Amino acid sequence: MHLVVLAGGIGGARFLLGVRSYARERGAEVTAIVNVGDDLSLHGLRICPDLDSVMYTLGDGTDPDRGWGRRDETWTVKAELAAYGAGPEWFGLGDRDLATHLVRSTMLGAGHRLSAVTEALCARWQPGVRLLPATDDPVETHVVVEEGTIHFQQWWLRHRAALPTQRFVFVGVEQAKPAAGVLDALAAADAVLIAPSNPVVSIAPILAVPGLRDAVTGGPAPVVGLSPIIGGAPVRGMADRCLAAVGVPCTAAGVGDLYGARSRGGLLDGWLVDPADSGTAVAGVPVRETPLWMTDERATAEMVRVALEVAGA
Amino acid sequence: MHLVVLAGGIGGARFLLGVRSYARERGAEVTAIVNVGDDLSLHGLRICPDLDSVMYTLGDGTDPDRGWGRRDETWTVKAELAAYGAGPEWFGLGDRDLATHLVRSTMLGAGHRLSAVTEALCARWQPGVRLLPATDDPVETHVVVEEGTIHFQQWWLRHRAALPTQRFVFVGVEQAKPAAGVLDALAAADAVLIAPSNPVVSIAPILAVPGLRDAVTGGPAPVVGLSPIIGGAPVRGMADRCLAAVGVPCTAAGVGDLYGARSRGGLLDGWLVDPADSGTAVAGVPVRETPLWMTDERATAEMVRVALEVAGA
Repeated sequence: MHLVVLAGGIGGARFLLGVRSYARERGAEVTAIVNVGDDLSLHGLRICPDLDSVMYTLGDGTDPDRGWGRRDETWTVKAELAAYGAGPEWFGLGDRDLATHLVRSTMLGAGHRLSAVTEALCARWQPGVRLLPATDDPVETHVVVEEGTIHFQQWWLRHRAALPTQRFVFVGVEQAKPAAGVLDALAAADAVLIAPSNPVVSIAPILAVPGLRDAVTGGPAPVVGLSPIIGGAPVRGMADRCLAAVGVPCTAAGVGDLYGARSRGGLLDGWLVDPADSGTAVAGVPVRETPLWMTDERATAEMVRVALEVAGA
Repeated sequence: MHLVVLAGGIGGARFLLGVRSYARERGAEVTAIVNVGDDLSLHGLRICPDLDSVMYTLGDGTDPDRGWGRRDETWTVKAELAAYGAGPEWFGLGDRDLATHLVRSTMLGAGHRLSAVTEALCARWQPGVRLLPATDDPVETHVVVEEGTIHFQQWWLRHRAALPTQRFVFVGVEQAKPAAGVLDALAAADAVLIAPSNPVVSIAPILAVPGLRDAVTGGPAPVVGLSPIIGGAPVRGMADRCLAAVGVPCTAAGVGDLYGARSRGGLLDGWLVDPADSGTAVAGVPVRETPLWMTDERATAEMVRVALEVAGA
């Protein structure tokens, strides 16, 4: 069995722990197609926060309290950069994390594709899941606010997603192609799962890569999503603010409607919601209730089991 | 009074402490023209060991025991790079130091010249001396050994200067020009001092920049050198191995002869040797004996005073 998961960073990473756990018991293969819209360049380094969150989490290298970055992280370089007046202060550039960006940037500078670089980095972390960036081309989520357009990370970290927001723009996406391996993985998938990641800034930029959405909806595999909203609030992060910015209700039904039924030009063959959202209906989509709190790997693996049951895979 | 000093890294840095001390008492200006032949690129970062040694030392930021790099240095990034299999293991890339390279590399990447970058870095360190790279163009000392040609740092750090050595090559020097400010500083100098730095791999690559040597020997200022060899051994470092590689005796006289009398097409109007080398003669060059151990700033400032006395400045 081959499972493909569309995933963002921290929530996607935690979900993938459960997917891996489920897959290991059944000898299934897993490919994660990971958002790159959060990527940014700082100090000449290419930083891929979502890929790194997934890689560190699956490689048992992440900080369990923060949920992002490296365990036992230190911040010497960041303090030194500040002493030079070289910010930004709001980005958490840890010393351990920085080595990843140095290796990545050197490889990218030498002409390697991000997918190949990710594979090389994973040779150390052994995530047990194949990690693919959605695209090898640079795509960055920018946010149109009153004062102009700012990088997603600035909006998210510096302004805590609290600026009045007009819309999100995936800069570079028109010229982007699915990364090496992405279309093959989707063509060979027995099921596609949409992780309970931020639908607006994690899942949407993946699907915005030309050809990728069609490969999902036109592919052989059933597509089942898991709601990132429980009881009207995000499981984690600031999806509420992102949904508000695009005029989508912050509910399990709202996100289900945003994705839409595959039979009606949307994505979903099934939609999982938490029992707290009992009675959620999405036009044309079978909705299944099951606990969606990813409290530990076993609980998360059970979510995966139910999702695949809904998929009929 | 305006003093210009040609200097390498660690020995040059220590000498400049004495020059600064001397100059402060007399309200003199100091410009240091610093070797860039040791520069290298690692992990996409441009590293200038000699400029940094001088900047950190004069900025009270250097490690006093090692004599290079930053005080209270940590090595987290280096260990992480090693975990990725990304060396080289033999280069001491500290976390604090790395911030300097990030700022420098970002500025160089944005099109700033190395001299302007150095000035920007010095805004933090306030060395009290104007630091200029010998050239803004990339020049790297490579070493021709039996197996081929390797970077100076590899020869020096990895092989401890112990490989049988045919010659040194200053790669890129033919296309290089003196850095912004270098020719003006030499034209305005009241005295030029050649620091007791390594003559083969610190002073020679400075003078090899086309136009620079002529600006020294054709300029208005007397040129006085200080021997980096005392009693047949280098004050510090492995100058003996470098001198052997170019067939120059490791003596105060040998280095004096290598530089040569300005009146005979060489550099020197005066040559300072330690009393341990009493009786040293260099054809056409007045030789003065004075203690050359840079034990502290006062002893070093006294060396400077004597050098300027010899210069008649």
